Amino acid sequence: MKAYVYVTLKSTVLDPQGKTIHGALRKMNYRGVGDVRQGKYFVLSLEPNLGRETAKAEVERIAREVLTNPVIEEFSYKIED
Amino acid sequence: MKAYVYVTLKSTVLDPQGKTIHGALRKMNYRGVGDVRQGKYFVLSLEPNLGRETAKAEVERIAREVLTNPVIEEFSYKIED
Repeated sequence: MKAYVYVTLKSTVLDPQGKTIHGALRKMNYRGVGDVRQGKYFVLSLEPNLGRETAKAEVERIAREVLTNPVIEEFSYKIED
Repeated sequence: MKAYVYVTLKSTVLDPQGKTIHGALRKMNYRGVGDVRQGKYFVLSLEPNLGRETAKAEVERIAREVLTNPVIEEFSYKIED
């Protein structure tokens, strides 16, 4: 069982890294990109004997308490077998 | 239209950042996590007049040529309206 956690800056927070990538893409003549935002991405391999509900609760707790800075970031996650 | 690009280290490449997070989770008494790997995550806002096929080709090109280091990383992406 694997959990995928996606952490991004809140949309109200400026993302200088994304802006830099966007600027680079424009300079390199890639077309059609209006904006870029960068985030982090975690793959957690969960122990197979963990129940689905327990896994969900644990992953949500880890994402909220460890992987995300709640002041400027938000997260989403999905769990797959 | 938005494109989501996920970049991770190839599974054969050691991920010290993921290992550190895994170690921290163990020390903090989070249970059930066997392994952690960290990657990057990009959200590209695409211009609406871009066709689906063009968008797909352009995003794949950007991911391959700019966002990923092909020696140690691999990517996947999805496009959503």
